[in-house]
Amino acid sequence: MIIVMKSHASPADIANVVRMVEALDYRAHVITGVERTVVACVGEERGEAHSLTHLESVAGVERVMPVLRTFKLASREVRPEGSIIEVGGVAIGGPRITVIAGPCAVESRLQVEGAADAVKAAGAHLMRGGAYKPRTSPYSFQGMEGEGITLLEHAGRRVGLPVVTEIMDAHDIELVAEHSDMLQVGARNAQNFALLRALGRIRKPILLKRGMSTRIEEFLMAAEYILSEGNPNVVLCERGIRTFETATRNTLDLNAVPLLKEWTHLPVVVDPSHGTGLWSLVTPMALAAVAAGADGLLIEVHPDPRAALSDGPQQLTPASFKALMAALKPVAEAVGRRI
Amino acid sequence: MIIVMKSHASPADIANVVRMVEALDYRAHVITGVERTVVACVGEERGEAHSLTHLESVAGVERVMPVLRTFKLASREVRPEGSIIEVGGVAIGGPRITVIAGPCAVESRLQVEGAADAVKAAGAHLMRGGAYKPRTSPYSFQGMEGEGITLLEHAGRRVGLPVVTEIMDAHDIELVAEHSDMLQVGARNAQNFALLRALGRIRKPILLKRGMSTRIEEFLMAAEYILSEGNPNVVLCERGIRTFETATRNTLDLNAVPLLKEWTHLPVVVDPSHGTGLWSLVTPMALAAVAAGADGLLIEVHPDPRAALSDGPQQLTPASFKALMAALKPVAEAVGRRI
Amino acid sequence: MIIVMKSHASPADIANVVRMVEALDYRAHVITGVERTVVACVGEERGEAHSLTHLESVAGVERVMPVLRTFKLASREVRPEGSIIEVGGVAIGGPRITVIAGPCAVESRLQVEGAADAVKAAGAHLMRGGAYKPRTSPYSFQGMEGEGITLLEHAGRRVGLPVVTEIMDAHDIELVAEHSDMLQVGARNAQNFALLRALGRIRKPILLKRGMSTRIEEFLMAAEYILSEGNPNVVLCERGIRTFETATRNTLDLNAVPLLKEWTHLPVVVDPSHGTGLWSLVTPMALAAVAAGADGLLIEVHPDPRAALSDGPQQLTPASFKALMAALKPVAEAVGRRI
Amino acid sequence: MIIVMKSHASPADIANVVRMVEALDYRAHVITGVERTVVACVGEERGEAHSLTHLESVAGVERVMPVLRTFKLASREVRPEGSIIEVGGVAIGGPRITVIAGPCAVESRLQVEGAADAVKAAGAHLMRGGAYKPRTSPYSFQGMEGEGITLLEHAGRRVGLPVVTEIMDAHDIELVAEHSDMLQVGARNAQNFALLRALGRIRKPILLKRGMSTRIEEFLMAAEYILSEGNPNVVLCERGIRTFETATRNTLDLNAVPLLKEWTHLPVVVDPSHGTGLWSLVTPMALAAVAAGADGLLIEVHPDPRAALSDGPQQLTPASFKALMAALKPVAEAVGRRI
Repeated sequence: MIIVMKSHASPADIANVVRMVEALDYRAHVITGVERTVVACVGEERGEAHSLTHLESVAGVERVMPVLRTFKLASREVRPEGSIIEVGGVAIGGPRITVIAGPCAVESRLQVEGAADAVKAAGAHLMRGGAYKPRTSPYSFQGMEGEGITLLEHAGRRVGLPVVTEIMDAHDIELVAEHSDMLQVGARNAQNFALLRALGRIRKPILLKRGMSTRIEEFLMAAEYILSEGNPNVVLCERGIRTFETATRNTLDLNAVPLLKEWTHLPVVVDPSHGTGLWSLVTPMALAAVAAGADGLLIEVHPDPRAALSDGPQQLTPASFKALMAALKPVAEAVGRRI
Repeated sequence: MIIVMKSHASPADIANVVRMVEALDYRAHVITGVERTVVACVGEERGEAHSLTHLESVAGVERVMPVLRTFKLASREVRPEGSIIEVGGVAIGGPRITVIAGPCAVESRLQVEGAADAVKAAGAHLMRGGAYKPRTSPYSFQGMEGEGITLLEHAGRRVGLPVVTEIMDAHDIELVAEHSDMLQVGARNAQNFALLRALGRIRKPILLKRGMSTRIEEFLMAAEYILSEGNPNVVLCERGIRTFETATRNTLDLNAVPLLKEWTHLPVVVDPSHGTGLWSLVTPMALAAVAAGADGLLIEVHPDPRAALSDGPQQLTPASFKALMAALKPVAEAVGRRI
Repeated sequence: MIIVMKSHASPADIANVVRMVEALDYRAHVITGVERTVVACVGEERGEAHSLTHLESVAGVERVMPVLRTFKLASREVRPEGSIIEVGGVAIGGPRITVIAGPCAVESRLQVEGAADAVKAAGAHLMRGGAYKPRTSPYSFQGMEGEGITLLEHAGRRVGLPVVTEIMDAHDIELVAEHSDMLQVGARNAQNFALLRALGRIRKPILLKRGMSTRIEEFLMAAEYILSEGNPNVVLCERGIRTFETATRNTLDLNAVPLLKEWTHLPVVVDPSHGTGLWSLVTPMALAAVAAGADGLLIEVHPDPRAALSDGPQQLTPASFKALMAALKPVAEAVGRRI
Repeated sequence: MIIVMKSHASPADIANVVRMVEALDYRAHVITGVERTVVACVGEERGEAHSLTHLESVAGVERVMPVLRTFKLASREVRPEGSIIEVGGVAIGGPRITVIAGPCAVESRLQVEGAADAVKAAGAHLMRGGAYKPRTSPYSFQGMEGEGITLLEHAGRRVGLPVVTEIMDAHDIELVAEHSDMLQVGARNAQNFALLRALGRIRKPILLKRGMSTRIEEFLMAAEYILSEGNPNVVLCERGIRTFETATRNTLDLNAVPLLKEWTHLPVVVDPSHGTGLWSLVTPMALAAVAAGADGLLIEVHPDPRAALSDGPQQLTPASFKALMAALKPVAEAVGRRI
């Protein structure tokens, strides 16, 4: 159930409602919107004695209503105007399209600084780079790990861009959270519930990628694992699903974008680099993502894609990325956004 | 192999090359482009004695080159500038985005005329409507058949729009071709090779939909069945593939759009109505399709979707379609197209 | 609705019920079981005036009950003991596992006679061979067509095996039905409703293959197209579905076998040759199919697979087929069947 | 590369080869087979100076050969006779079919002891039960955790069955390994490489489930993560993949069984309970799995499935499980195995 407070409800009204909800053995999550506050009540509904319906008569309460979806805290109903998540001072989810760019993996100081210069110059808002790399084979390059985190942090700081990097092991959360501005959960860990819970106990923003075979409802339930532990700062990322088609590495599912925007208040970004696996498809699919309503993009850019240690065929050159940013501007404006 | 003629090659040069190709037991398809003519040679390559390479020294020939793809006549290599297909005076494939709209099924004179008025008023270029309906169940409404064809033809003529309708049975080709401007092959017949061959023997334009589990290369091979019989007027339609996702009826695969534009010279249109199955997703996915490079759209519009005999949940009202057309204009312009 | 007749109901009782059902604007299909007869009533239910419920009081009627599935004539409810389909004197669906074997395509008199000798010697009950071949590419070998039909017929007759061959075009039904004992509908035509309807108007048994992305319910609806036109002789064939897995040509879905046996009275056979695309998997998956409850197998056998004009990698040699038949015997007996 | 030792090679010969391999900067894994020993050399091949080929002339070496697959330690080539993994004194991978049975989740002492009695009485060899449950929703029952582990251990000990339970978090490995005989990695963690690596550093046997969209090659690469860290005790479990089919919970992919048996020496078990999600399909698919060559089965059995806290529809009653075991015996014998 969610309890919608009146627009003029006082902090004392809200605290009172929370106390009453907890007395009935539910957990209360207070979600503060621009217009009004919502108290989401999580827990099993156990018949009359625990009914929340009578709270409609309590001071400051406008309405008590059931959440129809299986996901509760992620549901659009609890924050109809949508969430804006702040990452190192950069907003994701507002009118501006947020572009996160950088190499697939941090490979060396030279490479990551080259990438940082390039993406900053082209107008990116955040920088990405992998230090811990989930690779299908244990014999492939696994990332520079701790050293990579430091190189990425310095490269971002040098050009003034907050940084995003992947976390694969709950054990590394403290280190990674200290040296980066946003933690990414990759597709292979999309239903690693132990990791999701651990990330729910920090406050750093989380970039949660959809799994290769995760249905949209399951994707929102994965987000719910983070939200229900107390971290409200979740950004969703569509990155392609696995289908029978072999011409592309994955099938970027842009249908997910308008559907997620209908179902959840969380911001939605799109990764056309992994989603297609082919650099020549990155720009058209990036434009399509924005036209479909995405709040941002995740683009792989490498100073020299042919020399990349991973995912070379899908990384853009600095010149191609600059062209993408130029092409993006009129499309964003055509759908009432800006960049 | 394809033989690229010089830009100033004469009709006599071309006829001479065709004669030589056929003497070597290949079938020759002459593909007349804006800049130059290409002679595509189809048949098994059978060693030295049948080699086409020596034709490079023949008058008017610029180059003899292998076609690398398994599809040959559909390959972009044979017509790098892209094809423009004319349907009742309307071009598909040029700078203008072509919008084909109308009800899923022709249900009555009143309904089809209402739809015709609505889509014409909103700026559609072609009208669609199904008279023969492929339905999963034999007990569902199967379409008005012959009578539906006539109603559609009249409704289109009344408002000055050429009409597109589905063909399910080679037996009906003559009738349907006489009363419509373009014949659609549905997803379930995407690899009905007997039907494709029969459609290759007429000259009416064909709207070929991708099958639910057809890979992009197989899709182009299906087009090749029509092309190789002699009908060059094929427009491809992405309409969603079947995946594990159940939130949408199909997974509209927009990745196919830029990939097809790379691989083939045939125009590519997108059907977000079947592709998503949800009316609220039709407009964002239509905008995304155009941003991704589609040459046109196929949109289901019904005067009263709630009363529709088939596919109600995915058909737009006239008002929503009008809004879609308005939203489309700036996006088309943002990617250098118009509507 | 289905009307279950009493076990001692007379032909006159049944005729009377049929007349009453048709007077209410339904089509009546009489299904004669071993124990009792069922009258299936097909048509839209249109309220009180057309209610069939009152027939419970008519002579010879035991019960009037709704069919819960969307498929009606194919439903197990109308013939709980299961159907046995006769093909040229060979039964499919009884206690014996029926093995249909032969080459992917008829290639020459020598090849088809060699295959006939081999499969007969190893104990096959029916012979298969394709004369019309649905090939992804129009430039691949398309089969020997009419000549192939004749070669197959003669080869079967020589060794005393009824023959099964694929039909792709309604136009060829008369010819193919005259020269073969069972007509196969391939996966690509699994929802070619025009072809299915045409096959419903003959009485020759039909071997209906599941489409590459056909759900089990849709598969039964495709069978329903044939049944509802009046041809009750349908055998279903699981032949692999399309998934993300690329190690096998298709994913043979054996789950479909026990599920189909629960849902329908029609016999179910399995094609592990197309289902896996790898000869080394054919025998284990054939054994698994029988263990799962299949009524028969469709096995590709070629006198010399390396020289095959199509699907070489999945065809068994005569020696491997003989070994398969030997391995099959104890597995069939282990599940209470014989071979 | 793998170095196949002569059958009479001495321990000193082997130690010498290992030393030479490591001197060339490879990691050496000694794999001791019944007939002979193989030294698998893992690491990048870096040209002439690091070539292993010259080791063919070293004492005790029979042959130096490349491993053709991307997976190395899991490859059948390194142990052609197959591996047998011991779990609490019970062998998996030998001539006997190993049956692992028990409830989806440990729910109470009463329930787990009832299940233990039932599966022991019916002839199961190992007991399973989940204490840490990966659930799609954070609001669903998450398992009894530590307490569940203890209840399972006691229930198994009481009836003399080693126990298998799922591990979701590397943090719990020590606790779970102490109180159970085999640790299961669930489908959602199939590519949780941090967890796989951690499990590679213990010696307890691991039951590795295939992910919902994991290709067979990727599945073996996941096993390789465990093997390459030093834990050779890995059993693979096919448990259904995600496809477009909605009639079953997953599509149990039995094709994987003979393919895995060809490609790897690791034992392969099958879970028809999760693989189909329908109790009525569990027995036929269990029989099919054994006919296809599986080394064992994982069957969910609950004293009272209707009262189960998770996965009720797919759990067998004790009576059904007893019937399954009886049906299994003749099928196992038909393929040269026993139970």
